[in-house]
Amino acid sequence: MDFRFEVLKTDPTGARLGRITTPHGVIDTPAFMPVGTAGTVKGLTQQALCELGVQILLGNTYHLYLRPGHERIRRLGGLHRFMAWDGSILTDSGGFQVFSLADLRKVTDDGALFRSHLDGSEHFLTPEKSIEIQQALGSDIAMVLDECIEFPADHARAADALKRTTAWARRCRDYARANAAGSMTPGQVLFGIVQGGMHADLRRESAHQLVDLDFPGYAVGGLAVGEPHAISCEMAAAATAELPADRPRYVMGVGLPEQLPDYVARGVDMMDCVLPTRNARNGCLFTSAGRINIKNAIYADDPRPLDEQCACMVCRTYSRAYLRHLFQANEILASILNSHHNVAFFLDIMSKIRQAIAFGELAAFSTEFQARMEAGQP
Amino acid sequence: MDFRFEVLKTDPTGARLGRITTPHGVIDTPAFMPVGTAGTVKGLTQQALCELGVQILLGNTYHLYLRPGHERIRRLGGLHRFMAWDGSILTDSGGFQVFSLADLRKVTDDGALFRSHLDGSEHFLTPEKSIEIQQALGSDIAMVLDECIEFPADHARAADALKRTTAWARRCRDYARANAAGSMTPGQVLFGIVQGGMHADLRRESAHQLVDLDFPGYAVGGLAVGEPHAISCEMAAAATAELPADRPRYVMGVGLPEQLPDYVARGVDMMDCVLPTRNARNGCLFTSAGRINIKNAIYADDPRPLDEQCACMVCRTYSRAYLRHLFQANEILASILNSHHNVAFFLDIMSKIRQAIAFGELAAFSTEFQARMEAGQP
Repeated sequence: MDFRFEVLKTDPTGARLGRITTPHGVIDTPAFMPVGTAGTVKGLTQQALCELGVQILLGNTYHLYLRPGHERIRRLGGLHRFMAWDGSILTDSGGFQVFSLADLRKVTDDGALFRSHLDGSEHFLTPEKSIEIQQALGSDIAMVLDECIEFPADHARAADALKRTTAWARRCRDYARANAAGSMTPGQVLFGIVQGGMHADLRRESAHQLVDLDFPGYAVGGLAVGEPHAISCEMAAAATAELPADRPRYVMGVGLPEQLPDYVARGVDMMDCVLPTRNARNGCLFTSAGRINIKNAIYADDPRPLDEQCACMVCRTYSRAYLRHLFQANEILASILNSHHNVAFFLDIMSKIRQAIAFGELAAFSTEFQARMEAGQP
Repeated sequence: MDFRFEVLKTDPTGARLGRITTPHGVIDTPAFMPVGTAGTVKGLTQQALCELGVQILLGNTYHLYLRPGHERIRRLGGLHRFMAWDGSILTDSGGFQVFSLADLRKVTDDGALFRSHLDGSEHFLTPEKSIEIQQALGSDIAMVLDECIEFPADHARAADALKRTTAWARRCRDYARANAAGSMTPGQVLFGIVQGGMHADLRRESAHQLVDLDFPGYAVGGLAVGEPHAISCEMAAAATAELPADRPRYVMGVGLPEQLPDYVARGVDMMDCVLPTRNARNGCLFTSAGRINIKNAIYADDPRPLDEQCACMVCRTYSRAYLRHLFQANEILASILNSHHNVAFFLDIMSKIRQAIAFGELAAFSTEFQARMEAGQP
């Protein structure tokens, strides 16, 4: 099955209800993608992901390249087979981690020289190398290598990175086309990434340059790096306004539950974030009445479900008192159940967002939902 | 439903095929009980326990008393409700942990004074207190408080502890009877515990004294504390020979897969051990071809299931290479999947043992099984 994107309905806000088809199935959009860093969404079995209705997850090229190694995963049949996940997978380019997690040594027009955060070994990531790795992983959607810059970054710095990002995007596209047969997933597609820092004119320019390269989908990168949420939205809007309506749009690395509808209202179809699973492991749980820190003593005798509005396995089965106990006792089950609920909560928001778009009522949904989230904050 | 035990068939070895009925259901015996120390079998959801066919699990009174506290669990409806587990539960008396894990300060005829391993707080565990706690937890089967001694212990020391154990057993029985209404599980029963160190005559004497107290079931405690396996078997046999045939017999804290049939052949109906889950977290996995240390580099490219003879979710779904990767990457999913498989493996052995007894062929099964286990050892 070839890659396909259909817009089924557009909301007055500009939000789109859609459907992506990949070689591994259908994805209802707008979609939130849980992050499966090292070939596992932390704390969840693949069985749990199925039960949660996950249609697509994100794999991290940087982590999988370093461990267990992309050639090993290729030998083992690609990432889908390696992790026994038959749904869709999107892989990032590895660039974000090289620029943030690794010990970055040098960036040239050719690529990025870095040392592994695991063992200090030296590696050189080029646009071609990133695609080669992602072809070995065999994701359904691969991403171009982009230059991720620090925040804040001035206009000149951002313009410079934009230029390099476009050049790298072209090289990624050309390498992917020339070596398509090397992908573990026939039909794998490649998305471009709009950069430009917090400068709307650069975001527009970046979008134009990428559209000229004709990608089947476009991401907006370099957001949620410390800027106010209003700026993120402005940058996302500046980019999406220039992107073709018939291609999916993906804002990378966002966001808080109450922020998701804002991106969707700007025509965004895909998002991903480590927030649900990372916060879960720290005891921070999202509910329809705001955030809960489950280690708080007020929950020690609380027999209620975590979220009375939530129909997930955790909320159907366990009490706050039990979840608090598990967290206090540092039990593995705390991470399992907390991650399960938080991912369920994010997926449920997306389901409600899709329903709101179907009724043409995303604005009303957002207002009500965001007020509820804010009211529940400590 | 009141407590009931039926022997359905006896094997030439002396092994019994049976069925225990508790207020929470039926347990096919011989049974292996996974250990749910702090209200969770480490690494497994209650949903997974159901899928694995677990009929009874063990809860640790010492741990639950210290955290989250037995009165809290009582307020929350008892341990079954607290942990959302509707199958049977057996609780130990807390004695073993007080004598091994806590900072033991003083043992008198009245009880044991100890400091919590969590916060150093001082507590006094008496026979009555142990029952009070177990009634608040509301297990289906409670255990008497016994004096657990060091290994080796000479005859005089073991005889002394035996005497105290019998006296404590009587006090537990009397307190449980007088306060039966205080149990969160109506119909909760209490088992006696045979002690006597590694002295067969004391094991027999202890059994006689406990039988005089007329318990609905009997355990053999103080085994697998460092003695050779042959001695454990001898002590178990010395005890079971004196115990009534119409009551279940439980050897506490055993054992390795290849040892399980040996206890069963001595008329043992129940066993428990942390081995499957603890070893799982350390990467030690049990298979039908012996033990595997999954962190071993030879598994890095191994596409085979962990155990080709095993039908568990892990072996049906994932490769050794993936399991090795998860362990190396210190992923939560490593603990989840490894624990799942090891518990499945122990339960599968018990299922095969029961089948062998049904055919009157336990001896043949044991010989074949133990040879296979030993051949697979490194």
